[in-house]
Amino acid sequence: MARARKRIGVVAPGARLEAAAPDAVAAIADALYGAEAPEIIFHPQCFLQDGHFAGPDAARAAAFLDVANDPAFDAVWFARGGYGACRMVEAAADGLAPAARDKLYLGYSDAGVLLAMLDRAGCRVAHGPMASDFKRAGGDAAIKRALRFLVERAPDTIEPSARAGVRAAAFNITILSTLIATPYEPDLSGRVLMLEDVGEYLYRIDRELFHILSSPAGRRAAGVRLGRVSEITPNDPPFALNEEEIVRHWCARAGMAYLGRADIGHDSGNMIVPFFDLGD
Amino acid sequence: MARARKRIGVVAPGARLEAAAPDAVAAIADALYGAEAPEIIFHPQCFLQDGHFAGPDAARAAAFLDVANDPAFDAVWFARGGYGACRMVEAAADGLAPAARDKLYLGYSDAGVLLAMLDRAGCRVAHGPMASDFKRAGGDAAIKRALRFLVERAPDTIEPSARAGVRAAAFNITILSTLIATPYEPDLSGRVLMLEDVGEYLYRIDRELFHILSSPAGRRAAGVRLGRVSEITPNDPPFALNEEEIVRHWCARAGMAYLGRADIGHDSGNMIVPFFDLGD
Repeated sequence: MARARKRIGVVAPGARLEAAAPDAVAAIADALYGAEAPEIIFHPQCFLQDGHFAGPDAARAAAFLDVANDPAFDAVWFARGGYGACRMVEAAADGLAPAARDKLYLGYSDAGVLLAMLDRAGCRVAHGPMASDFKRAGGDAAIKRALRFLVERAPDTIEPSARAGVRAAAFNITILSTLIATPYEPDLSGRVLMLEDVGEYLYRIDRELFHILSSPAGRRAAGVRLGRVSEITPNDPPFALNEEEIVRHWCARAGMAYLGRADIGHDSGNMIVPFFDLGD
Repeated sequence: MARARKRIGVVAPGARLEAAAPDAVAAIADALYGAEAPEIIFHPQCFLQDGHFAGPDAARAAAFLDVANDPAFDAVWFARGGYGACRMVEAAADGLAPAARDKLYLGYSDAGVLLAMLDRAGCRVAHGPMASDFKRAGGDAAIKRALRFLVERAPDTIEPSARAGVRAAAFNITILSTLIATPYEPDLSGRVLMLEDVGEYLYRIDRELFHILSSPAGRRAAGVRLGRVSEITPNDPPFALNEEEIVRHWCARAGMAYLGRADIGHDSGNMIVPFFDLGD
């Protein structure tokens, strides 16, 4: 017998989740769906602390696999970015069971490491808001968007240019740069690559675009869209180009199409980019 | 008739060189060699300014090729790091003439992009002090070391573990990460890889070590030595590991040998690491 309510598991592959997240997210889910609200189960690992991380590498991998491999869950929702997914991705990849392919995965920023790995493994992944976004200005809208995507794949939660069957993938620029040529490098063939970043110097964005779009992996993309690059670190002297001029420069150098802006970024407006065909 | 004095050309592939550099460097060369001092010719491009860079990309590439392709020069000495070599490396590679293979190249940091490209092209390159190092505390020693290497390949200028015929290559961690899978990725096969960095968060060093040592390029190295990682940006909470623990961790994960420390870094003690056999 089918369950009436969706069950969403939350795990933290990088930084620890704020203790206030479960109540804040539950209140938004109740307001949105009432008695039909999804069950949102925060794995206790979300609240561990080990230096920079939400628990040791092994604990973060084990928590991810607890939820990914459990057929009782419909979705894995990443709690938060920060840093740490690359330290547990190998154990996560090695431990994937068949049930992992029957659910949705949602996150962004550092969690992009897992999106890339899971996409390669044949799972349905999407780039979009995480539980920790409740604390942003206007964060309610980000949480509602994530839930409406996870529960009902609502079309208006999808990044506009990705709605009409365009194949796409979205990444944080710095994260994608550090996946190039690793076993977790995404296959961008025939996909529009959407990029965003936060809290970087423009010269670093420029260097990472050189890297991504000089590599075979980057050049396989069908074109590039630029999301928001926010909280740019001031540079002295000012960098010669802005973020859109940087992406145009490296697209031109690579002979690739620059397709315009994407409605994604480290903010509450971050729209959802599924890596899979929504008809699947 | 052989020239008695060596001729060294200085070019700036990234940031503008300080105006005081030529006099400071000439004084050190005169004190060291008197009438036998090398001619050190600073290309006018070193002092251009275009936003972040020592002149436009095309000017930096042209200046590099002016010196690299001129048989009258014995060596190309990079002026300074900063940022910019990746924006002119393609034009530099495309313009190399046979005379470029008959000289020495010396630099580090951002200039590592050119070291990697030139090494692949069969040129003799080395990782070591640049002209701009005159301004560091104890910078005289760095400039003397660079000159004694460029003029006479003095054995005591060489990083100790690299003296006895060990094949090696040295890079800034962040720069090497952004070369992986590009046309300028270094061939590390059978070489000891020496790494250093400056002014980074430890979590970034950790992520870049994941990247380098998860890639086929990094794993081809015969082992890893860690130079100095200086001016680490403070992190809250403190990162779980220090820089040597980070390198040990990723070497172990990659099944590679961690060989200990290397005497290189962003400081005046930066010893020279030739990428070629000193007998050549």
